[in-house]
Amino acid sequence: MTEKTLDPRLAQMIADMLQGNARALARLITIVEQDDHDAHQVLREIGPTGKAHRVGITGPPGAGKSTLVNRLTSCARQNRLRVGVICADPSSPFSGGAVLGDRVRMSQHNLDEGVHIRSMSTRGSLGGLPTTVHGVIELMDASGKDVILVETVGVGQMELDVMQSVDTVVVALVPEAGDDVQAMKAGLMEIADIFVVNKADRPGAESLMVGIRSMLDLVCQGDAWRIPVLATQAENNIGVDDLYQQIWEHRRFSLDSGVFTTRRAGQRYAEFTAALQKMITQEFMQAVAEDPILCACVSRMNAGEVSAYEAAEEVFRIVSQQMR
Amino acid sequence: MTEKTLDPRLAQMIADMLQGNARALARLITIVEQDDHDAHQVLREIGPTGKAHRVGITGPPGAGKSTLVNRLTSCARQNRLRVGVICADPSSPFSGGAVLGDRVRMSQHNLDEGVHIRSMSTRGSLGGLPTTVHGVIELMDASGKDVILVETVGVGQMELDVMQSVDTVVVALVPEAGDDVQAMKAGLMEIADIFVVNKADRPGAESLMVGIRSMLDLVCQGDAWRIPVLATQAENNIGVDDLYQQIWEHRRFSLDSGVFTTRRAGQRYAEFTAALQKMITQEFMQAVAEDPILCACVSRMNAGEVSAYEAAEEVFRIVSQQMR
Repeated sequence: MTEKTLDPRLAQMIADMLQGNARALARLITIVEQDDHDAHQVLREIGPTGKAHRVGITGPPGAGKSTLVNRLTSCARQNRLRVGVICADPSSPFSGGAVLGDRVRMSQHNLDEGVHIRSMSTRGSLGGLPTTVHGVIELMDASGKDVILVETVGVGQMELDVMQSVDTVVVALVPEAGDDVQAMKAGLMEIADIFVVNKADRPGAESLMVGIRSMLDLVCQGDAWRIPVLATQAENNIGVDDLYQQIWEHRRFSLDSGVFTTRRAGQRYAEFTAALQKMITQEFMQAVAEDPILCACVSRMNAGEVSAYEAAEEVFRIVSQQMR
Repeated sequence: MTEKTLDPRLAQMIADMLQGNARALARLITIVEQDDHDAHQVLREIGPTGKAHRVGITGPPGAGKSTLVNRLTSCARQNRLRVGVICADPSSPFSGGAVLGDRVRMSQHNLDEGVHIRSMSTRGSLGGLPTTVHGVIELMDASGKDVILVETVGVGQMELDVMQSVDTVVVALVPEAGDDVQAMKAGLMEIADIFVVNKADRPGAESLMVGIRSMLDLVCQGDAWRIPVLATQAENNIGVDDLYQQIWEHRRFSLDSGVFTTRRAGQRYAEFTAALQKMITQEFMQAVAEDPILCACVSRMNAGEVSAYEAAEEVFRIVSQQMR
């Protein structure tokens, strides 16, 4: 079903990437993003990874996440760590590419060989993003990065899924959070390992921090990680060193308490499930397209004779019987 | 595999709902949201729907979407149409419930029997939201609603999927849109049937409208629907009547041009795919949990001997062989 011999072109690219070649890494990421046969070969070949610490930075639009990521990258570089940055952008399903803007501001790191920056579009169908983000994280890990920073806009289930595939989640908020952001906050509250109130020189910062702390007091357990609420002004580089320290503090806590191992196991299982789901869906959909009986179910749905749900059930029943 | 006899309790609830009983509708929505055996029975029983016009309202946080939905509901009620409102909230995976806030403002319609309001959380796993949103739309349609308004925060693939399951998409923006919103705009540009610049009394409204129009000029074709860019002040009920008219104008255009039929077919196919994907994944995961050989693959993954991707491929290969 799948070939066991690796395409020599891919083998060379992987060898180059493992030697630290940035262009080979960039190419391999593009391949993995395609999520096709080559992508699967590459992911199979690099095998299990997990050396790098994976940090998610999320929050509502306008919270200054990109600036925070930029500053954190500088901190890591001062400590001679190699950094991978993944920006999982909500972007155009039409162009398929990430839009300029935030990315431009990362340019100070663009010439640094110790930093690899990648913008990913959220293009693709149901459940498309998480698997490819996982793949890109694994590639960056395999290429020898020490820290991987994943930035997403913190809205929606898909972003929560991405955040559940990192080791430390930083949630960034800003004082002038509106109503919708208030609603989001409850969701963000439960994935955060570290809270940041960015643009902390603006009015309302102090009361936002007090508000978050009192909400956290309601949720947090006694002996668990005590989620810090930090004030930053990423634009002016204030408070970012402290945030950087807290990220490593959280890693230490996680490793000592066993939380790290549990989370990683959860991440692997989620990756496994997503990959398996894709494989079987692909196989199934192909069967539907090729089988005249199954095509007839779809036609009856299109004619309005049965609902989409009934059609799916019928197809499922027929294929299940064929399997037995 | 699935029972063909309907639970009499569910049959009664469905009968009550079809008679216009709001409590029965609310209960059935709760059942459909659970996405379990009962949910599937209900969806199978109500069969194909499609009478109601389905309108999506999306946009970044703070664009005043809830207020727009509220005002549009009033317009529809003045025309004696029955309205279903679905708020697909990014909310807490912990509480599983939608957080208060926006919803409270809808309260003027809460006592109106011609309006059914439902907040949905985005809780659930991969691809969880769209199927249940589809189901809730179908229930509201079956219950005799004439218009269904679906409000989502316009970020991320999942929201795009929801917007692709409606007949008319209204994208709401506000003048003070920040950087992230700029980036989103490109994505929103391609799903919009109608653009609204809300809070149009604020500075920058005129230039935002000009900007949108010039972007649209680049994208839009000659004979297609000419996407209107409307100014509203939903809080003061200014411009909402025009928006309401444009929604029906768009429906008329869609029906005449055949776009409506094409879209509905696309929606049904997406529903079909999502439902089928869920069914087969469930079956597969159960097989993995029960089969000692497949469990061993997962154990090897947990021990770090193989990557998640390799484990998924192995499981898929074994099960595929068992099928033949």
